[in-house]
Amino acid sequence: MKTVEGGVAAPKGFRASGVAAGIKPKSTKNDCALVVSDTASAVAGMFTTNVMKAPPVVWNEEVCAKGAARAVFINSGNANAATGERGFRDARATAEAVANKLRIPIGEACVCSTGVIGVPLPMDRILDGVTRCVESLSAKGHGDAARAIMTTDTVPKERAYEVALSSGVIRIGAMAKGSGMICPNMATMIAVITTDAAVDAPVLSNVLREAVAGSFNCISVDNDMSTSDTVLCFANGAAGLPAIAPGTPDFNTFKTALDSVCRELAKLLVKDGEGATKLVEITVSGTQTDAEAKTVARAIGLSQLCKTAFFGQDPNWGRIVCAAGYAGVPFEPGRVALWLEDVQLVSQGMPAACAEADAAAAMKRPEFRIRLEVGNGPGSAVFWASDLSYDYVKINADYRT
Amino acid sequence: MKTVEGGVAAPKGFRASGVAAGIKPKSTKNDCALVVSDTASAVAGMFTTNVMKAPPVVWNEEVCAKGAARAVFINSGNANAATGERGFRDARATAEAVANKLRIPIGEACVCSTGVIGVPLPMDRILDGVTRCVESLSAKGHGDAARAIMTTDTVPKERAYEVALSSGVIRIGAMAKGSGMICPNMATMIAVITTDAAVDAPVLSNVLREAVAGSFNCISVDNDMSTSDTVLCFANGAAGLPAIAPGTPDFNTFKTALDSVCRELAKLLVKDGEGATKLVEITVSGTQTDAEAKTVARAIGLSQLCKTAFFGQDPNWGRIVCAAGYAGVPFEPGRVALWLEDVQLVSQGMPAACAEADAAAAMKRPEFRIRLEVGNGPGSAVFWASDLSYDYVKINADYRT
Repeated sequence: MKTVEGGVAAPKGFRASGVAAGIKPKSTKNDCALVVSDTASAVAGMFTTNVMKAPPVVWNEEVCAKGAARAVFINSGNANAATGERGFRDARATAEAVANKLRIPIGEACVCSTGVIGVPLPMDRILDGVTRCVESLSAKGHGDAARAIMTTDTVPKERAYEVALSSGVIRIGAMAKGSGMICPNMATMIAVITTDAAVDAPVLSNVLREAVAGSFNCISVDNDMSTSDTVLCFANGAAGLPAIAPGTPDFNTFKTALDSVCRELAKLLVKDGEGATKLVEITVSGTQTDAEAKTVARAIGLSQLCKTAFFGQDPNWGRIVCAAGYAGVPFEPGRVALWLEDVQLVSQGMPAACAEADAAAAMKRPEFRIRLEVGNGPGSAVFWASDLSYDYVKINADYRT
Repeated sequence: MKTVEGGVAAPKGFRASGVAAGIKPKSTKNDCALVVSDTASAVAGMFTTNVMKAPPVVWNEEVCAKGAARAVFINSGNANAATGERGFRDARATAEAVANKLRIPIGEACVCSTGVIGVPLPMDRILDGVTRCVESLSAKGHGDAARAIMTTDTVPKERAYEVALSSGVIRIGAMAKGSGMICPNMATMIAVITTDAAVDAPVLSNVLREAVAGSFNCISVDNDMSTSDTVLCFANGAAGLPAIAPGTPDFNTFKTALDSVCRELAKLLVKDGEGATKLVEITVSGTQTDAEAKTVARAIGLSQLCKTAFFGQDPNWGRIVCAAGYAGVPFEPGRVALWLEDVQLVSQGMPAACAEADAAAAMKRPEFRIRLEVGNGPGSAVFWASDLSYDYVKINADYRT
């Protein structure tokens, strides 16, 4: 598996584009993106579990249920959420415009919207965006697309891999956006993954579910699950290789690559989280099950007190074991051990004899790891969290003003 | 029911004291408090559910299981948490010193510790604090006691009521401390309630459980449940009235008064929460059950995005309905209605025709109410939350440095 250029357009048969259509208020930044497969493509999706899910999410769920789609149009600047019946009509009208321009069935066009909640889509600008996105589609348009889906993100987020299967080479490309309301429980805000591997929709759906569980569902910037979280994965088979069958070595190779893409993007989202100055990798082990370990790691990653200590570069292990303690998972306090990088802070539930200054020094890096052992059970999990900074408060107290 | 002076020493037969014993580092502030009943007293307690519960919590659980106690000694500046076997020995030694000085059984002395986690108690200073607290006990010592239990609190928190029962007058007094690691799931950091009503321990325990459920368990400053959360309620019967029996009018009167004391203190904790500039009362209704309503209200009260919007005085209703949507309680998005004070922001899941400026104006007050309706079910609940400010981050990024 090697990293290549090209983002979502790296796999064969995919093109992309991004344009500025004036949907982001008072801005000339890109705000419409389009990703298209030139041929028929399987699709799988993972979506927010928020009751207030936005109309585009409902539309995409219907598309993904059928397992085939050739395009996804994404606008930033407006989430088309809490927009009632009009929101559903607008999502459908957008999909219809995309389908007409591309001459594909309307049921094969996905649409995503991200941005402010509760304001109807400016449909004239959206339709203008659709037209211009279709006109500017190219294999080189991936960067424009990745920039067009940004909201409070400070950098575009793309990855592409080349993966050697037994029958030949396939590629996986991806882009994603954050960077607030990030605590997905099904998928992150928006991520689009493309591959020229041939994968049947049900297989793709299973592999995607597992990849998301270990990546986008293991991160938190601010504990707030959005109304629009969406991960879409397109597989068009344009590499010309046989379909990847579950249980084969190629299946495992593909799965590993997809897991890796999702994890890379998930970490990029945390790293670029609103106001984030730290990317903290939290590993918990020794629970009875992996799910328990994830629950504990998540409690630490969501704790405001831990996150402010990360920001303050303070190895305040008391807050970490405290958060572990209220996660709802039973464990023996006397068995708890904690490391910050290589510095052991806690042993048998009590302060370890350590140079806390070494731990504080490690926390000065932009990325560091925490490892918590709570027993000798076989369960383990990894979670990625940002810190909680002044800038997070500033960004979110001033968001609309 | 009328408010009176005197805090925990307002009810007959209770005395209190607070002294500075040098447990808070580099400080001359009070850090030891003692509350004593001059006669035998029933006791009930509610405690943290944190797995990493501190040794004093374990000790108090044992005391409360027997239902009788005459004293509680509290130190601030050190939580005696994550201190292993030594922590248990220290908690017991403290209780023993209190019991010896007061000439009461050791099993009737409660001990609480609040402050830094993971540092052994400085027992010489603690024992000095015990001696001096016993020496300075008085009916006027309630204020010294309330100040001695403060950590990052900016004001002491006391309440006392006089309540007319059918047989005569009783009093209820109370003190509490916050102000970080506040998201109790059993009780808050530390609160002590006294009454000269005669209430049997099992009855007291039931009434306290319900009072806590609707007060301390309905608040959040920072979503972090502490290792030390403790509410203790002493009833010594010194008013000389008959025991209060469940099912009688007096029982309901007493219950209402205890509920009210707990709710007042809980709101004081939120108001004085770390960095808090707002006290927000969140009422949710229309769910199938009260528990569902509390879950939704809690999701809003815990949401970092809602809390930063409260700080920014931004009527960002999208974040409120979004948080409601991920609470895990099913409801129809199209039935959602939201008010900020008297301004309706959302109707049928969509923006209401309102002057958002009116809502923004209401948010400039230090206290305001949010009311969310999610259907026409009979469930409802109230939750109190603080906002999330720069100062919260500052206080907690710099806590130990």
